[in-house]
Amino acid sequence: MRSGRRWRRSGDPFVSDARVIVAGASGFAGALAASLVHRHPRLELAAATARTDAGERLDRLYPRYRVPVELTELDPDRAGDFDAAIVAYPHGAAAEIVSRLVQDGVPVVDVSADFRLHDQAVYEETYGDHGASELLGEAVYGLTELHRDQVRGARLVANPGCYPTAAILALAPLAEAGLVGEVVISAASGVSGAGRVAGDRFHFVSVDENFTPYGVEGHRHRPEIVQELEELGNVGAVTFVPHLVPLDQGLMASCFVAPRRAVDAEELRRLYAERYDGEAFVEMVDEPPGVREVRDTNLCRIHVAVDGPTGRAMAFAAIDNLWKGAAGQAIQNLNLMLGFDETEGLV
Amino acid sequence: MRSGRRWRRSGDPFVSDARVIVAGASGFAGALAASLVHRHPRLELAAATARTDAGERLDRLYPRYRVPVELTELDPDRAGDFDAAIVAYPHGAAAEIVSRLVQDGVPVVDVSADFRLHDQAVYEETYGDHGASELLGEAVYGLTELHRDQVRGARLVANPGCYPTAAILALAPLAEAGLVGEVVISAASGVSGAGRVAGDRFHFVSVDENFTPYGVEGHRHRPEIVQELEELGNVGAVTFVPHLVPLDQGLMASCFVAPRRAVDAEELRRLYAERYDGEAFVEMVDEPPGVREVRDTNLCRIHVAVDGPTGRAMAFAAIDNLWKGAAGQAIQNLNLMLGFDETEGLV
Amino acid sequence: MRSGRRWRRSGDPFVSDARVIVAGASGFAGALAASLVHRHPRLELAAATARTDAGERLDRLYPRYRVPVELTELDPDRAGDFDAAIVAYPHGAAAEIVSRLVQDGVPVVDVSADFRLHDQAVYEETYGDHGASELLGEAVYGLTELHRDQVRGARLVANPGCYPTAAILALAPLAEAGLVGEVVISAASGVSGAGRVAGDRFHFVSVDENFTPYGVEGHRHRPEIVQELEELGNVGAVTFVPHLVPLDQGLMASCFVAPRRAVDAEELRRLYAERYDGEAFVEMVDEPPGVREVRDTNLCRIHVAVDGPTGRAMAFAAIDNLWKGAAGQAIQNLNLMLGFDETEGLV
Amino acid sequence: MRSGRRWRRSGDPFVSDARVIVAGASGFAGALAASLVHRHPRLELAAATARTDAGERLDRLYPRYRVPVELTELDPDRAGDFDAAIVAYPHGAAAEIVSRLVQDGVPVVDVSADFRLHDQAVYEETYGDHGASELLGEAVYGLTELHRDQVRGARLVANPGCYPTAAILALAPLAEAGLVGEVVISAASGVSGAGRVAGDRFHFVSVDENFTPYGVEGHRHRPEIVQELEELGNVGAVTFVPHLVPLDQGLMASCFVAPRRAVDAEELRRLYAERYDGEAFVEMVDEPPGVREVRDTNLCRIHVAVDGPTGRAMAFAAIDNLWKGAAGQAIQNLNLMLGFDETEGLV
Repeated sequence: MRSGRRWRRSGDPFVSDARVIVAGASGFAGALAASLVHRHPRLELAAATARTDAGERLDRLYPRYRVPVELTELDPDRAGDFDAAIVAYPHGAAAEIVSRLVQDGVPVVDVSADFRLHDQAVYEETYGDHGASELLGEAVYGLTELHRDQVRGARLVANPGCYPTAAILALAPLAEAGLVGEVVISAASGVSGAGRVAGDRFHFVSVDENFTPYGVEGHRHRPEIVQELEELGNVGAVTFVPHLVPLDQGLMASCFVAPRRAVDAEELRRLYAERYDGEAFVEMVDEPPGVREVRDTNLCRIHVAVDGPTGRAMAFAAIDNLWKGAAGQAIQNLNLMLGFDETEGLV
Repeated sequence: MRSGRRWRRSGDPFVSDARVIVAGASGFAGALAASLVHRHPRLELAAATARTDAGERLDRLYPRYRVPVELTELDPDRAGDFDAAIVAYPHGAAAEIVSRLVQDGVPVVDVSADFRLHDQAVYEETYGDHGASELLGEAVYGLTELHRDQVRGARLVANPGCYPTAAILALAPLAEAGLVGEVVISAASGVSGAGRVAGDRFHFVSVDENFTPYGVEGHRHRPEIVQELEELGNVGAVTFVPHLVPLDQGLMASCFVAPRRAVDAEELRRLYAERYDGEAFVEMVDEPPGVREVRDTNLCRIHVAVDGPTGRAMAFAAIDNLWKGAAGQAIQNLNLMLGFDETEGLV
Repeated sequence: MRSGRRWRRSGDPFVSDARVIVAGASGFAGALAASLVHRHPRLELAAATARTDAGERLDRLYPRYRVPVELTELDPDRAGDFDAAIVAYPHGAAAEIVSRLVQDGVPVVDVSADFRLHDQAVYEETYGDHGASELLGEAVYGLTELHRDQVRGARLVANPGCYPTAAILALAPLAEAGLVGEVVISAASGVSGAGRVAGDRFHFVSVDENFTPYGVEGHRHRPEIVQELEELGNVGAVTFVPHLVPLDQGLMASCFVAPRRAVDAEELRRLYAERYDGEAFVEMVDEPPGVREVRDTNLCRIHVAVDGPTGRAMAFAAIDNLWKGAAGQAIQNLNLMLGFDETEGLV
Repeated sequence: MRSGRRWRRSGDPFVSDARVIVAGASGFAGALAASLVHRHPRLELAAATARTDAGERLDRLYPRYRVPVELTELDPDRAGDFDAAIVAYPHGAAAEIVSRLVQDGVPVVDVSADFRLHDQAVYEETYGDHGASELLGEAVYGLTELHRDQVRGARLVANPGCYPTAAILALAPLAEAGLVGEVVISAASGVSGAGRVAGDRFHFVSVDENFTPYGVEGHRHRPEIVQELEELGNVGAVTFVPHLVPLDQGLMASCFVAPRRAVDAEELRRLYAERYDGEAFVEMVDEPPGVREVRDTNLCRIHVAVDGPTGRAMAFAAIDNLWKGAAGQAIQNLNLMLGFDETEGLV
């Protein structure tokens, strides 16, 4: 039993090893990131900023997280006050401030989509103009289990999207083995994945007792999934369709793969067991996981199986979209960038 | 605007055209079937029976349906009292009573799985021994939109499973056009689809805030889907995986097809529009439907699209698993068997 | 078994007895009212108007209701085209159009709060200025079970609020018997009760897994409850506090009364049974009702009990806030105003 | 900012100060208690036992808690192996084992109802025969904020019920001030409060979209509430009615008090602020709390107000029924019994 799984004793002194700013702390992912920094055994929450809710207390907006700080406006000239930054702005809005912080020597984990795609053309086709494309080449795609070594030395880590995190973890061992032919990824996420957005679509009455596919004309997380899988090996055509589920936190990626050659369940299980051996946050399980099992954890639980009649390889990956799919993975990456144990503050 | 969409005036007299027994009326599908018979403009609910809840009032078990009758035990010698029967027993338990009723000349819609599969070997592999296999050849598979003419003259209709109903309706136009290559069906259902079963698995705390794939080693609805698609045309390998969603009524079949030749969205939409033109209960829609849209209706709403990067044809079909997926379709079939308008009592 | 509980036969001709306009049909209550008119055996939905969603189709906003009409802008000069009107505007916004319609001779059921309070001073203290106070004296408070005779002859019926409907029905028999001393009403409603309002408060993530008292400083439904109870008899001090429940439709009023003299459960049950004998929409039940039992019905289910240790009389009333608490009761009232059977189109 | 709010650093050594057995660890409260011991900075989970699930792994039954131990059968002769015990059996089943452990010198927190009532007659009227009534006089009622000093020296602490915890905390300051006249407590709890019980009543489909009063003929938590309030001061007649809410964890006690003399909101707020000043787990808040705010915490959040028209004092207390209402408070008490800081392992 690792001692890291326990709370600190109440009398023990706390000395922070790093002062962290969380920018965009009024959104769902930013607020959780602020809370994780606040409870981290080595980090100090030096500032939590917001573009529209400055002046509001974070524990009023998110009572459950119990972070007793006031949201402030970001002061770009104060970069020197911080040892690291987590930026949780919407895509498009992050590039400028991320660029500024990196220039000022502050290591950044960017939770937005702005630096996830290496290819500027693909970015612009997916999201529009890019405000700091000079950093696209340097940014490390922060799916920790794939790029751990690069994350360690990075100045800028692009934290993966929630769907890509689950989908890529579900498919990486197969892709690395060169086994991924045609792929269908049918995914589902709780409502917090859409961010703190107002409007009819996420009104309780719209979501309650509902289940809906969306983004079927092309969801912007697809290029991210393809980029990473293709780095791992030659993969077939990838279809990705997400669905909205009436729950708050939780994401499932159900992946169906036509393997390049026949595989049986035994080989599949061995392949995944070996690939993820020693990983703190990836657990292979004997039955299809439910998202409730990983709620409020940084875990990704994966089950693999072979569909008897067709020979398709199937992988089902469950995460909490706000944890491993956003803020939890941001801390995991930040731990590495700062030289800490990867699991610090997360287990 | 069809007049059938309206309630009868309160003073108008009611004369029943057929006396119907609903056997197994204490389960979710049976109770709804009893309620639909009770409100039907041409049917009389002559008996509602239950194997374990006899003596209990139906409006106590299911207050919302407001059917003021007492559940009784089934008396097989009373077959002569009924003009038709709906049997809603669990699979395996239905064969005997269905067989008896049919022999006694009572037209039956069987909501169980017992007569859905034409091939006895496939049945026994999927469900175990069959108690009345001599009727397998005669039973009509009651997906009304596919087998309407046969249903009209049938003595025994095997009402389809909930997943097959949505999946087959989603794929039939493509299958009839010979376009279905490899297929992945990723489906999701609310909890009522599992029936009125006790135990940890469907306890509120197990389902709430959860989303789980299940039956990944082979769900028993797969052979039913394959049987029907193959009757329509040559189809590729079919993978089918369901998921459990935290809601009570609603089912989505998300279908991903590698087409035998390239199709574009326009052709796809035209194909489906033509095939389902004039169907009262199948609606083609411009956006992916949510299951909430069809809750408490006998509708199947379908959206089709083509996945740009891969050319896959996609069809998303939403139904209420208790209505079009069970009791509603049972009434739809019974209407045809009795010579009524198919929509009677359903719109 | 009443024939009114059945659907009309599909071939039967339909001749409308009254052309009805529903103004404000894009809100939750207005949309349901439009749908109830649309299926009513004697009414025709002659127009469905909206202030902000004109041009939008009603079956796109509310697919489940299946009302195939386009929302239009209200044309006050077309009053002559309608035999009756249901106005479902927010409070404050209804007075003007209601006044205009009444002057033009169109009988109106106003679902807003604008004409519920007889005393202008109480209205203005609760809601602000009144735009048509000259009608306050004429408007009939449309809790049908209390004011049936007045509703029959009314030009303007003020449809009750959702909480008052349940609370007053729960307390009326006691109040009429002069037994109501001190009262605490602890109520709870699903989210649709708040109307189709955007913003953080009714976002799925705010409501999910939550339960919250609100309006504790004084909810505007309290004066309405007090007005009606005091008309029935001398009542003690009334406290009313509502709570928000994570469900869409359903409302419970749990009422705790210090009786003016000792009553036992038997007397209480007899009192209520007699009072509500023959009422189509009030049902006395042996156990506390759940709101799910009355979902999508115009029913109010009431359970009464006496708290042994204290002698308090308790009444628990469950309704669907959108039906008996709004649109259903509007139809019930309209039926009476137009000389139809009160249950027409509702059972 | 207290350092106790942070996780232990991953490299720090862990030496347990006390070996704890959790008996009944397969139920909802017991499983959470085991998880809290497992993460506690000073405790070691020396055994987790279950009466019916022995042999099952705890992290299979409750994946989210991530406690990697196997449930065993309780061996009463091993008492010497443990420094303390938490017993989470159903009421009636706990008395015998609790008695045995206490005799063997093991300090016990009993989460069942068996030792909460001081008066044997009241216990037997409420729950039936008592198996170890000789300990009723010694057991300390473990509402920590009321009986902290007694808990410190106790051999046996009877952990309060979930409803009494919230209700008593909501009313204690008023009761101590002698201000509590007539009281109505209208409470509501999520489904986990009923324990891990199978059957129709807690099936997802029964609870979903429902809200139901229950126990209106006399809930067994009432005597517990009365016992404690009467110890604090002279109180009027207490009515207590709970409701079931469609959520998993969360409990609200809405309390309505006729004060013995007039109080205003200002006095009320001051009274509560003073009474709970310095309490780690009781927070006074400016607006009515939602149960979601305290989910997965040991907090009780209380809002007080005065109902203007009636002068009633109102207190609304929100807790997580599994934490402060069960397992969290058990740890809080155990901390005191073992001489630790009360908040250890809970913040």
